[in-house]
Amino acid sequence: MSEEGSAKRHGLIIVNTGNGKGKTTAALGTVFRALGQGFKVAMIQFIKGGWRYGELNAAEKFDNFLLEPMGHGFIKLGDGDPAPEDCALAEKTWAQCAEKILSDEYDLVVCDEVNYALSYGLLPVEMVLDTLSRKPHRVHVILTGRDAHEKVIAAADLVTEMREIKHPYQKGIKAQRGIEF
Amino acid sequence: MSEEGSAKRHGLIIVNTGNGKGKTTAALGTVFRALGQGFKVAMIQFIKGGWRYGELNAAEKFDNFLLEPMGHGFIKLGDGDPAPEDCALAEKTWAQCAEKILSDEYDLVVCDEVNYALSYGLLPVEMVLDTLSRKPHRVHVILTGRDAHEKVIAAADLVTEMREIKHPYQKGIKAQRGIEF
Repeated sequence: MSEEGSAKRHGLIIVNTGNGKGKTTAALGTVFRALGQGFKVAMIQFIKGGWRYGELNAAEKFDNFLLEPMGHGFIKLGDGDPAPEDCALAEKTWAQCAEKILSDEYDLVVCDEVNYALSYGLLPVEMVLDTLSRKPHRVHVILTGRDAHEKVIAAADLVTEMREIKHPYQKGIKAQRGIEF
Repeated sequence: MSEEGSAKRHGLIIVNTGNGKGKTTAALGTVFRALGQGFKVAMIQFIKGGWRYGELNAAEKFDNFLLEPMGHGFIKLGDGDPAPEDCALAEKTWAQCAEKILSDEYDLVVCDEVNYALSYGLLPVEMVLDTLSRKPHRVHVILTGRDAHEKVIAAADLVTEMREIKHPYQKGIKAQRGIEF
């Protein structure tokens, strides 16, 4: 970081939530903007398949980008209470996020679909809030996923709700490669 | 396009609207996803300054991306009726969009902040609707900007409203380089 940059820097806690498209996609747009500025960026995914071929391929062009997909299978969301192994996996994934955030080595850390893990009861909200409260001042964090926890919203600087107004599934159109994945 | 791809392809008309952040940023995320899939992408901007250093720098890494920033000064939005030269400029910019869309040479065409130009009365909505009605089937189009016209929403397949829930300006925090621009 240049001194000029540091002086003005105020690391934001950003939440992209809501039932519409664009939560992860807007995070992805922010990642590319940050990469273009020379920022060091880490992305950690809580839901398998949230990152697809398109963005992974594009991301490979950048040396300053670290992607940590869930490498251990992934959480199966069912009707009943969360299974202990899924909770353990979610907590392990948050520990990865916390390590990246608290290391102060990244300019931006994206915790993709963490709101989902919280709303399914896989992760205690206090664990997330504790890390955010200890976040180095200059580090930006993005938390995506629907049903963001009210305490996470309270801790955030920038919160956007993506609302679905119209969806192609309503017309029977399948998800489109290169656009939706 | 491969035959496999063409067979499943249904070009979407996508609208990102609302008063919140993430309209252009989500379009940017979709652009990078599409570029990563090898799609040919064009972006045309209606509002000067909508594209900043970060994304321009990142975009340079891709051969399959064409950015057409407004090169002719740009529309000054005031209180009164739109000036004739601003309308002419907006119409000229839409003509660029139409050329890219109708050429069938691009997989994705982003018309950034066109909704803004429409809502300010700089561009007749019929001009936009006419192009969209003649869009080649396989071409995806994204139209961004607040206050999307109801006829544009009616013509779209996927519409998302980005709603501002909380904004850092409310805390007196300035826009952050690498994140917001």
